[in-house]
Amino acid sequence: MDTISNGWFSEMSPMWPGEAHSLKVEKILFQGKSDYQNVIVFQSASYGKVLVLDGVIQVTERDECAYQEMITHLPLCSIPNPKKVLVIGGGDGGVLREVSRYSSVEQIDICEIDKMVVDVSKEFFPKLAVGFEDPRVNLNIGDGVAFLKNAPEGTYDAVIVDSSDPVGPAQELFEKPFFESVARALRPGGVVCTQAESIWLHMHIIKDIVSACHQVFKGSVDYAWTTVPTYPSGVIGFMLCSTEGPAVEFQKPVHHIDESTDESNTLKGPLKYYNPGIHSASFCLPSFAKRVIDAKK
Amino acid sequence: MDTISNGWFSEMSPMWPGEAHSLKVEKILFQGKSDYQNVIVFQSASYGKVLVLDGVIQVTERDECAYQEMITHLPLCSIPNPKKVLVIGGGDGGVLREVSRYSSVEQIDICEIDKMVVDVSKEFFPKLAVGFEDPRVNLNIGDGVAFLKNAPEGTYDAVIVDSSDPVGPAQELFEKPFFESVARALRPGGVVCTQAESIWLHMHIIKDIVSACHQVFKGSVDYAWTTVPTYPSGVIGFMLCSTEGPAVEFQKPVHHIDESTDESNTLKGPLKYYNPGIHSASFCLPSFAKRVIDAKK
Repeated sequence: MDTISNGWFSEMSPMWPGEAHSLKVEKILFQGKSDYQNVIVFQSASYGKVLVLDGVIQVTERDECAYQEMITHLPLCSIPNPKKVLVIGGGDGGVLREVSRYSSVEQIDICEIDKMVVDVSKEFFPKLAVGFEDPRVNLNIGDGVAFLKNAPEGTYDAVIVDSSDPVGPAQELFEKPFFESVARALRPGGVVCTQAESIWLHMHIIKDIVSACHQVFKGSVDYAWTTVPTYPSGVIGFMLCSTEGPAVEFQKPVHHIDESTDESNTLKGPLKYYNPGIHSASFCLPSFAKRVIDAKK
Repeated sequence: MDTISNGWFSEMSPMWPGEAHSLKVEKILFQGKSDYQNVIVFQSASYGKVLVLDGVIQVTERDECAYQEMITHLPLCSIPNPKKVLVIGGGDGGVLREVSRYSSVEQIDICEIDKMVVDVSKEFFPKLAVGFEDPRVNLNIGDGVAFLKNAPEGTYDAVIVDSSDPVGPAQELFEKPFFESVARALRPGGVVCTQAESIWLHMHIIKDIVSACHQVFKGSVDYAWTTVPTYPSGVIGFMLCSTEGPAVEFQKPVHHIDESTDESNTLKGPLKYYNPGIHSASFCLPSFAKRVIDAKK
């Protein structure tokens, strides 16, 4: 099975051996090779437009809401009045779109390593790239690890790490030195949310991430998850951690998004997935995952 | 793409057009055609043994826990001391295995239409078919619709409808006359849990099921969901309803399973997925689904 063959895209990887999810391709819209990865955009038969990096689905128009809303609102609704937010990765703009819903936010920095991701999103995914239009956004093209090392200490209320899998350009974003840089850049009681793989496929990776986070973050350390049909196993998780300082109880959102303030922006639209109930519910884990993650506490 | 080709099984259906989930096949263990459907069992590379009916994955050894535990314990932990339980479908025995964890249960009736499903489960899936070994189980091979029509009124504390999709032999199990038979067979305040498709793929079907259930069941009517990686979109839902009588609050389990009483049965093993936290969380829906389901109330 090739990546695209006989009109179907198939997603295969050593990260999920022995299985593949395939989408019918109506039209290939873009194929390119950046300095970091292969980039494909295609129109699918049933999931809208699809962005693929190094053979792995990153975004489909049909289900991107679940990922973008959860990775953003789980951390930002867990603290009062976030002002400075940093996004690492997230070059499609979807997380920016969600961060821009907060009127308290004054500064949104983003560091994406691959300019081609930003460019194709602006060309093919206007409902994601709308996030770049917010005047509070400062776009940096570069290495997120280096960006964080150079960030002034205690700056951010929240850091959102919207990365691809820990193979290829995103590998360092799953390691302890990176988490230490994140902790340094956060204010006391600041929060981080990082993409943290699937409990059905990657408990061994998750176990290591949870261990590293417990060593680095002296506030709360929690794991949440959501469903995304076009991600392997249909689910993806998030590590949510806070630094020492004002306590953060991630399971209990303190901020409710006022969707009525969003009406001027028709591209952004109402929330499709996130609500306070699903915020709290996302921290409830199946027993097989709970046993492993709780053992690391 | 054929069902099995080049060593891969691919699941395709008009129920989820434009996508396919594929599993690498190590060995085909059984292929047969019953009076009702095509039956395949194969050893997969990464999900253990897999049962396929009419081209659709019903069970894999790796993720069956999520489905069997949730469809059983969501209804049975919502009522005190269930005594008589009826399973419609469920010929693999997995639901029986879960029902048999309740010491209060005195009688477990099951009506499966297709004897071949029972036979292949007993041959290839001992960890599911162990459910048939409980002396409280009465196996009926026949039509679940007819079985329910003939059941004495007000008999069951709980009915669990473990069906395939509403095409082929299971179609009637998603329609109002069937729900009326279920309601008739339940005691006052008795509960039913039926397989109710994916919120990501089948909101139009779910909307109709919810409408029909609100007309038929005069107690509680709720929708819950769980993840199952090898089901289309990675999630599957359940309708949970109760008849008029003692109130049932499905979100708040009243019974906790004592796993320590299970130790004599090594095949059954401990719960892998279900716990009281995930019971309550499973009723929290994404906004796009909540809006549709709440509108039917």
